[in-house]
Amino acid sequence: MSVQGKASLPVIKRLPKYYRYLANLSAEGRDKVSSSELAHMMGTTASQVRQDFNCFGGFGQQGIGYKVEVLRTEIGKLLFGDGELLPTVLIGAGRLGSAVSSFICRDANGYRLIGVFDIDPALMGREMGGVPIQPLEDLAAFCAEHQPQVAVLCVPRQSAIDLAGDLVKYGFTGVWNFSHYDLSVEYPGLTVENVHLGDSLMSLGYRLRNKE
Amino acid sequence: MSVQGKASLPVIKRLPKYYRYLANLSAEGRDKVSSSELAHMMGTTASQVRQDFNCFGGFGQQGIGYKVEVLRTEIGKLLFGDGELLPTVLIGAGRLGSAVSSFICRDANGYRLIGVFDIDPALMGREMGGVPIQPLEDLAAFCAEHQPQVAVLCVPRQSAIDLAGDLVKYGFTGVWNFSHYDLSVEYPGLTVENVHLGDSLMSLGYRLRNKE
Repeated sequence: MSVQGKASLPVIKRLPKYYRYLANLSAEGRDKVSSSELAHMMGTTASQVRQDFNCFGGFGQQGIGYKVEVLRTEIGKLLFGDGELLPTVLIGAGRLGSAVSSFICRDANGYRLIGVFDIDPALMGREMGGVPIQPLEDLAAFCAEHQPQVAVLCVPRQSAIDLAGDLVKYGFTGVWNFSHYDLSVEYPGLTVENVHLGDSLMSLGYRLRNKE
Repeated sequence: MSVQGKASLPVIKRLPKYYRYLANLSAEGRDKVSSSELAHMMGTTASQVRQDFNCFGGFGQQGIGYKVEVLRTEIGKLLFGDGELLPTVLIGAGRLGSAVSSFICRDANGYRLIGVFDIDPALMGREMGGVPIQPLEDLAAFCAEHQPQVAVLCVPRQSAIDLAGDLVKYGFTGVWNFSHYDLSVEYPGLTVENVHLGDSLMSLGYRLRNKE
């Protein structure tokens, strides 16, 4: 399965959802699934499903449906490559960092937590996700030795602004960004996935306050 | 400012981001901003910005730019209505619930945390976000008395499936959903904002593993 390199961000963001639904179907012992059934689970249309899959070569024939296990394996390859976990560092070991660490540590997501950093002296020596919390000033030396690839930013906006240039310099290629600073605008070479929880709450509020 | 009722979900999801950028500009003492400057901050195009604003009546004239404070106030009205906070209940008081509670408690996001529920007896009597943690079996009585409007679901998938029908019955109209069960498919009357952290990590992994 070769990647056609034409999948748009919305399509890419739907891949994990497809993967989850297929894992559920597989656990239920299902053999085949149609694009319209997948569409119903995803809250979309069968034509959208087929269009999404066409970005990756189609995954099998229409009409007779998709083989659940084949489809799950192919999408898994897209998401996880050869299964090598991405070496990852968490920056910011507060409450949010703590919650987020459990997602990084879940091997099934494709990452390996190798370092946790914070500026709070009270946290030093403690562990998070099975990794000792270290002072942020040691990040440069740590990166030189261990070459982490992904930084998870659970810090305030200003700290993210201050850190961004260093992250690029230290060789990070990806950021899972919980701060309210969009690093990708200034550093287009970084692959950034933003999770703005405050924005998410606010847009829910808009929809609730402006319901038909 | 009347809502035209034609804003699509992607537009709605960009509103908080506009609001944040305008708050930053306002804090810097800026008086005016052009659509192309806003576009640069948002990582989009000036035409997209103008198109977004046209969904809500335009917010002022093109060419001479937007008044920062007027624009911020108008978007604020869209997001927060008359400023009344939405009464909200957190279900699931684990690590994720703890991190998430601080976002609900931030008045600026438009919500008011009035109850926290869990099934773990060890958590009872403790507080989260200034609210005592109560047993989930008391949720029905609590809702009858306090009419919460929004449920924040920090529970596993199966618990969300088990709870969904009750949430509708108890009168919830909105769900901030961290579970891997999309309630909106089965309950289209609910307004659901999904935050799937595992999916977010996986799609970042796809982009890192399939970089050009």
